[in-house]
Amino acid sequence: MLNFNFYNPTRIIFGVDTIAKINDYVPTEAKVLMLFGGESARKNCTLAEVREALGAREIHEFGGIEPNPSYETLMKAVELIREQKIDFLMAVGGGSVIDGTKFIAAAVNYTGDTWEILETHGTKITQALPFASVLTLPATGSEMNSGGVVTRKSTQAKLSFSSPYVFPQFSVLDPNKTFSLPTRQLANGVVDAFIHVMEQYLTYPVNAQVQDRFAEGLLQTLIEIGPKIMEDSADYDTRANLMWAASMALNGLIGAGVPQDWSTHLIGHELTALYGIDHARTLAIVLPANLQVRRQEKREKLLQYAARVWQIVEGDEEQRIDTAIARTRAFFEQLGLPTRLSDYGLGETDIEIIITQLKSHNLTQLGEHKTVSLEISRQILATSI
Amino acid sequence: MLNFNFYNPTRIIFGVDTIAKINDYVPTEAKVLMLFGGESARKNCTLAEVREALGAREIHEFGGIEPNPSYETLMKAVELIREQKIDFLMAVGGGSVIDGTKFIAAAVNYTGDTWEILETHGTKITQALPFASVLTLPATGSEMNSGGVVTRKSTQAKLSFSSPYVFPQFSVLDPNKTFSLPTRQLANGVVDAFIHVMEQYLTYPVNAQVQDRFAEGLLQTLIEIGPKIMEDSADYDTRANLMWAASMALNGLIGAGVPQDWSTHLIGHELTALYGIDHARTLAIVLPANLQVRRQEKREKLLQYAARVWQIVEGDEEQRIDTAIARTRAFFEQLGLPTRLSDYGLGETDIEIIITQLKSHNLTQLGEHKTVSLEISRQILATSI
Repeated sequence: MLNFNFYNPTRIIFGVDTIAKINDYVPTEAKVLMLFGGESARKNCTLAEVREALGAREIHEFGGIEPNPSYETLMKAVELIREQKIDFLMAVGGGSVIDGTKFIAAAVNYTGDTWEILETHGTKITQALPFASVLTLPATGSEMNSGGVVTRKSTQAKLSFSSPYVFPQFSVLDPNKTFSLPTRQLANGVVDAFIHVMEQYLTYPVNAQVQDRFAEGLLQTLIEIGPKIMEDSADYDTRANLMWAASMALNGLIGAGVPQDWSTHLIGHELTALYGIDHARTLAIVLPANLQVRRQEKREKLLQYAARVWQIVEGDEEQRIDTAIARTRAFFEQLGLPTRLSDYGLGETDIEIIITQLKSHNLTQLGEHKTVSLEISRQILATSI
Repeated sequence: MLNFNFYNPTRIIFGVDTIAKINDYVPTEAKVLMLFGGESARKNCTLAEVREALGAREIHEFGGIEPNPSYETLMKAVELIREQKIDFLMAVGGGSVIDGTKFIAAAVNYTGDTWEILETHGTKITQALPFASVLTLPATGSEMNSGGVVTRKSTQAKLSFSSPYVFPQFSVLDPNKTFSLPTRQLANGVVDAFIHVMEQYLTYPVNAQVQDRFAEGLLQTLIEIGPKIMEDSADYDTRANLMWAASMALNGLIGAGVPQDWSTHLIGHELTALYGIDHARTLAIVLPANLQVRRQEKREKLLQYAARVWQIVEGDEEQRIDTAIARTRAFFEQLGLPTRLSDYGLGETDIEIIITQLKSHNLTQLGEHKTVSLEISRQILATSI
């Protein structure tokens, strides 16, 4: 096992009718800004519930945080907060709203150019406004971690940042809030969480038994949940298990003490920035090809994954690895996520554009061994056509 | 899944040569009290390492915290802290030292009779001195939770308490510190952690998929570690995995959103208080009999445990449950922990003494369904002779 430093102070308030508990954890005198995305948070009454829970506190609203939140939009919220002297932020939404709120929390009292927060990936953050979240879309894990991704529209750059100052103070997870979500978003959530686990699990063995078992348990859970979530009738428990699995997939726990990859994410980010493909859908394209191209480097863990997650015991080692990758791809497709660039009308010529972007963002040595050069990224993309 | 509220702000600093990092997390001006048990912490140089990490800070020492720490001893530390105006506590040891330090941290500035802290099981705690731990014995999970157990010598009562104010600020887990431990203590640690998981897992199903998978992953890990730890040659990774598994077994995570039992612990506590049997050893006596007596109540989870943890698929349901309980008992005995009261020279007449103690401590409705009456406890004890 590798050395690690694990810290996660976010409180999780989980279950039926838990939004009312917000009142116990927000300072009585707080001036609160509720941040949200589109109007669905208003239509499904979540905003009204949060407002009711906040009682007599002064409440402001900032809507319109887009999927893949933009620096440009977020800076408008920063201005509003400075003007109104708001001192507590309440994100109501999914990963994009929560990521955006983290950036805003760090930016409000940042001394210097706020763009620097992203350029330095959060390392220069030394304070942030206190904030919390009400999660309405299980997927990214942002509700229980200290990282985020923000896009600058002008440069098509998706930049990630993290800082111990931007853990939510608490997050409310009420699985009933997922009943109004379209199936597409739930399916994206399953795949997003699945690949978060894979980035921290499918590298090389360091004999971290607990982390491996936890990762495998999350993958098995998501495989069990997947088909159920595709039925409109998916019950409360299925949604609750998805919600908790997605939080646990990226809260630092399964990644503590093990090597991590993240090349699928970094290549996927370029696909979102260039072509607007949903985040999870980019991952579903890149991961199977990534495992295929780097199968020697990941050999031991691929065999463990095949045996423990998919119960594949037939065939020689190469066959078991082939089957595991094929089952992974089939799982994504069963959930309605295409796994080929060509499914989005992309081909050879687009690969060079993507490679150029990776190069311009200095993403030339990715993965747990830093072996994913531009050439390997090109091979991965070619394999995913 | 049941509703839950999960919160665990303890930082874990894990791995080789991590004691030096204490310096980063203790206030520079702190007046520190190092608390420890016997002289082993001094002999194996852990105290010296902690002292070196603390550098120029003012350091005091308080040794002699016994296994199953007593109220009487701990109150001597409270007096010392008040006299010397100490403001940061550093526990160096295993669960007893850390449990004791939690009580001390809450007691120093407690207004009123400090015994009340235990009588009310921690519910009246409203503050505590900041403290941290350097763990030398993996077992209880105290290094990453907010609970403890303290014994009052005069009444032979073991009283548990918990409070969100007594989470360690950080805990240092260096697996190399376990190399000087006797095998008996390591084996006790494996069983203690195993039964912590069982108390939160082996109840009745509530469709908490992640919690079940995590619990099963910890049990499987401990089953794999057990035999290795019995060899003197047990390597670093084995010790590291035991240390992390024991922390995860009782840090609130696997118990969030599921029913919990704890009857094995509460019956076991009386065995320690009356006969001085090591904590883990009392659990090894009580658990197999508890599962046997309550097999109908725990039927579904026993079958899941048999299948997923022990891969028992042969036989009808009763046989599979029998085999799972027998395998559990054999696992404890393989680690050198006897599983019968008679192994300690105890028999029928002692059972009535134990029952009288349970009654006097008002422990007459135990377990996830509150069905463990004194009569059921008597049956469990009779089955364990």
